[in-house]
Amino acid sequence: MEEPYVRKVQYYETDMMGVVHHANFIHWMEEARILFMDRLGFPYAAMEAKGIISPVRSLSCDYKHTCTFGDEIRVFLSVKAFNGVVMTIGYEMKNQKDETVMTGSSDHMFLHRDGSFARLKREIPEFCEAIDKEMNNG
Amino acid sequence: MEEPYVRKVQYYETDMMGVVHHANFIHWMEEARILFMDRLGFPYAAMEAKGIISPVRSLSCDYKHTCTFGDEIRVFLSVKAFNGVVMTIGYEMKNQKDETVMTGSSDHMFLHRDGSFARLKREIPEFCEAIDKEMNNG
Amino acid sequence: MEEPYVRKVQYYETDMMGVVHHANFIHWMEEARILFMDRLGFPYAAMEAKGIISPVRSLSCDYKHTCTFGDEIRVFLSVKAFNGVVMTIGYEMKNQKDETVMTGSSDHMFLHRDGSFARLKREIPEFCEAIDKEMNNG
Amino acid sequence: MEEPYVRKVQYYETDMMGVVHHANFIHWMEEARILFMDRLGFPYAAMEAKGIISPVRSLSCDYKHTCTFGDEIRVFLSVKAFNGVVMTIGYEMKNQKDETVMTGSSDHMFLHRDGSFARLKREIPEFCEAIDKEMNNG
Repeated sequence: MEEPYVRKVQYYETDMMGVVHHANFIHWMEEARILFMDRLGFPYAAMEAKGIISPVRSLSCDYKHTCTFGDEIRVFLSVKAFNGVVMTIGYEMKNQKDETVMTGSSDHMFLHRDGSFARLKREIPEFCEAIDKEMNNG
Repeated sequence: MEEPYVRKVQYYETDMMGVVHHANFIHWMEEARILFMDRLGFPYAAMEAKGIISPVRSLSCDYKHTCTFGDEIRVFLSVKAFNGVVMTIGYEMKNQKDETVMTGSSDHMFLHRDGSFARLKREIPEFCEAIDKEMNNG
Repeated sequence: MEEPYVRKVQYYETDMMGVVHHANFIHWMEEARILFMDRLGFPYAAMEAKGIISPVRSLSCDYKHTCTFGDEIRVFLSVKAFNGVVMTIGYEMKNQKDETVMTGSSDHMFLHRDGSFARLKREIPEFCEAIDKEMNNG
Repeated sequence: MEEPYVRKVQYYETDMMGVVHHANFIHWMEEARILFMDRLGFPYAAMEAKGIISPVRSLSCDYKHTCTFGDEIRVFLSVKAFNGVVMTIGYEMKNQKDETVMTGSSDHMFLHRDGSFARLKREIPEFCEAIDKEMNNG
């Protein structure tokens, strides 16, 4: 994704340490992912309307720098791997001083509502092409 | 509900003011409500299995005292009104020093999944009886 | 506040009813309030740097219409009352179809860090003037 | 930790997929950690009173099975590594059917409020001994 997702840190996202609670970064990863899918032309809502859900299989976060209320965070997202079944997304988050505050990744499956794996290359080939193109550009 | 719902304040529920963020009290109201329905013999999951959902129509909170991490909160819940269509629940939350930290109330509707109002007196008369009994005891 | 605060509903804000969980509206009220204070020229961070915190004393919400993932919500905020000690803010939230999804209000105190009431008319008269002007315009 | 931390899944922790949103597991990891520190005799609040905070440096989660409202989750926690500076904690979460729903880990630093590293072996040797003992028992 060329342009990062930008968002302000909210007051309710801080904790008594005076900084953003670490669980909230997971929300920001999701927000960036949803924007990415929108820009790609395959919004989550459209995928779910086709009967395909995309649960998180695993994730990891490395916290590099604290953030706090009022910071403006840019989330840089890139597709790291995709084999038609699992997609790995990488994240780098930077603050307004261009300091890296977090790096992370998440793995996503694509399932039908009954829990069976979607065969994306056959069911939505244009999605696979868009992801491949994104990876080559990235 | 004779016995209060008891729960510890979590670290992630605090904010940079060093106290519990006010939005979290809404969660505790729900937690107490779910326990109340369980004890009454009409758990939410069973109600939803019967096709009846119970969205919040309105709520109000009066914050009396700050809470912070490690506090033990007791939520006292009582049914304030019920006309077969809308149920009003009252809450009083106390800390381990027996100080009142919040009072509040919430109104709940009972709907079918299609959004139409459930006619509880006909559809689940035993629920209405249980609520009436609770109000008389309370 | 003339221009509303605009924000997209996030996936993680929904619950198993398929709609936004009611507690999240409290977050949106806060987000709008923070933007309001920024625009007014008295950002929360600046107030806290002056040693003044502004806890919520009470709030109420009336839920008019469900929201769900992907909806675009506009929060219209207005100062309803201010006596130099407590400020009452009103909210109306509308979706992309211009349906009102929630109306609400919140009362805010202004305290020093030691818990004593700030005397805003003496300590930050320019804030009081800005609020008065806002109320007259609103 | 010999006895697991037990907690019920709350309604507000679900999302529109009908299951627990993946970010909430991070909260449960923290809840279990806080109980662990309590049982060990070094509660977070006491550590913070000594001027030592313990931010998360990194974490990872592998989601094995969905959870939903009403499930009862047991969190098994173990100290995987500790060198006096960084502590690695492992988690396994099981549901009421004894299915593993998540495995994860988190790394924690110990800092003074000014951001400098605490030298725990010198500053709180009894904590280091308690952790070592825990690791040998685990």
